[in-house]
Amino acid sequence: MAILVTGASGYVGINVVEALLAAGREVIAFDAAPLHPAAGAVLAALPGTLRPVEGDVLDAGALDRALAAAPVSAIIHTAAVTSGPAREASTPQRVFEVNVQGTIGVLEAARRAAVSRVVITSSGAVYGESLYRPGTMDEGSTPVLPLTLYATSKYAAERAARRLAELWQLRVVCARLGTLIGPWERDGASHVHGVRDNFGPHSQLACIALAGGEALLPAQEASRDWVYSADVGRTLAALADAPDLPHTVYNLSAGIDWSGDIGQWCAVLAARFPRFRWRTAAVGETPTVHYTDLARSLMAVDRLHADLGLAAQRDRAQIHRRFADWVAGHGAAWWGI
Amino acid sequence: MAILVTGASGYVGINVVEALLAAGREVIAFDAAPLHPAAGAVLAALPGTLRPVEGDVLDAGALDRALAAAPVSAIIHTAAVTSGPAREASTPQRVFEVNVQGTIGVLEAARRAAVSRVVITSSGAVYGESLYRPGTMDEGSTPVLPLTLYATSKYAAERAARRLAELWQLRVVCARLGTLIGPWERDGASHVHGVRDNFGPHSQLACIALAGGEALLPAQEASRDWVYSADVGRTLAALADAPDLPHTVYNLSAGIDWSGDIGQWCAVLAARFPRFRWRTAAVGETPTVHYTDLARSLMAVDRLHADLGLAAQRDRAQIHRRFADWVAGHGAAWWGI
Repeated sequence: MAILVTGASGYVGINVVEALLAAGREVIAFDAAPLHPAAGAVLAALPGTLRPVEGDVLDAGALDRALAAAPVSAIIHTAAVTSGPAREASTPQRVFEVNVQGTIGVLEAARRAAVSRVVITSSGAVYGESLYRPGTMDEGSTPVLPLTLYATSKYAAERAARRLAELWQLRVVCARLGTLIGPWERDGASHVHGVRDNFGPHSQLACIALAGGEALLPAQEASRDWVYSADVGRTLAALADAPDLPHTVYNLSAGIDWSGDIGQWCAVLAARFPRFRWRTAAVGETPTVHYTDLARSLMAVDRLHADLGLAAQRDRAQIHRRFADWVAGHGAAWWGI
Repeated sequence: MAILVTGASGYVGINVVEALLAAGREVIAFDAAPLHPAAGAVLAALPGTLRPVEGDVLDAGALDRALAAAPVSAIIHTAAVTSGPAREASTPQRVFEVNVQGTIGVLEAARRAAVSRVVITSSGAVYGESLYRPGTMDEGSTPVLPLTLYATSKYAAERAARRLAELWQLRVVCARLGTLIGPWERDGASHVHGVRDNFGPHSQLACIALAGGEALLPAQEASRDWVYSADVGRTLAALADAPDLPHTVYNLSAGIDWSGDIGQWCAVLAARFPRFRWRTAAVGETPTVHYTDLARSLMAVDRLHADLGLAAQRDRAQIHRRFADWVAGHGAAWWGI
């Protein structure tokens, strides 16, 4: 049976679709925006069957049509607005409309179509204030104190999904994602959707490396709980197929110490792209790489590992190698460099 | 300057308006539904100035018109859908629309009108799972694990308000209310709004007492963290006038042990309404009083007391006397008995 992926043209979505197609699955790729041609070319070469359906996650009729495209065993819901402060200040309602009402709409569609399993993508951002306190973010005991509208909407979507699963007898599982690095990230400003405001430093550096430029890093290093995007795609796909799990919420991240990673990634890029140079911006110089946040606590990842038997890559050298391979193979087409 | 009260025809709202008018204040009473005449008659006799403005909290233009009715120093936002399981299963989107988007809409209106202070009414329900664990619900340390869509929407509204206050430089304070007992509660089914699904046992019993009937109580006693509604009105009014407070979230409840209260309230009612009888329903008999929940942990109330110098009544005998006085004076007109 097919898997329906919402937000299939987005960062998380493409990674999920790629993992499913690589495993030979049939995928209904639902999104308001078409898939970028550079991603389309890669996905078309995979063994599975891709059925793109254009539609808005807030449009119940469009969701019903997508669910009628093939018999569907599960929905992986990745459609979301990933908002930064400017978007939150200017269109706060929209964040909740897409992230909360959109999630409820997907669950309503699942119920109408009698789809047995829905995987909800939440975010480690839900921990909010706790991310800036010592300790590891644990699904069971860490206070959930979301700071942004994005994080607040994600926690509301989680809890709403939990409640509706109970009222409607659905099987829902939520994954709280770490901060993705890896294939298929785009700068929000240039993104087809215009719904993703963050563009991670690893991708920023990859773009500079591909263009053969020099990166000026901020004086203070950034390090957060990153996770390789392809691993996220593969794990979300596994959650869609998993039998009933003992919990409804799972952290999905690498859960490792990433300190010093920006410099190491620069060295990996320089080895592949010899014209690439990098240094820390001098006092008075404007860095050409920006970080949306400096440091956050790590997420505990043992619950997912124990229950699903699957974990995201925790070896930084392996992640760098995989991502550098991808940048060399697909980066220029994807970023238009 | 005037205070704008949203949801002014609802349970919390009428209590707030009454407290403000009793203090001689000017009140813009904003609601989609008109005030019930029985409440209107009581409020009209108070010294303050009441300016009713009919409008939906989701209608930005209506909010702007209400804020233009007089110079406004603060908004007390009580408009909400108080949903039970049936409503949550049938119209889940609506709960978030009113409780989250509605709150954001009120903050947007406050910003447009340069209103300096907004008081948000949240609920002890936000503690969710924690309410069924031992311990006292503390604003700073108790995990917030909302179970219902109502509770989830209230926590989302709290956190969204906190974020927007920061982005827009507003002064926002949230009060997590206990379960109200006391004046101006109506049965959801008969309510003008149809947005309040719970009708507390104290009011149910008062209605039976006024009608001179017999109450059949469920075998298992209910007891939760009740708070006298008039105290809630008075405290929310004080929050609207308070200088900057050290916290943005406050529990507002009695925080006392209410066990055995249903029986005691029956005895108080019987002393006032001699035809009233009550007993526990026998096995096989259907109780005529219902409880939406059996037992919940108490809320810590010391933060509000320390910072505002004001607390809700904690003497059950006093609360019973005040409520019985109100039932005798206004219950028949209010409930149409």
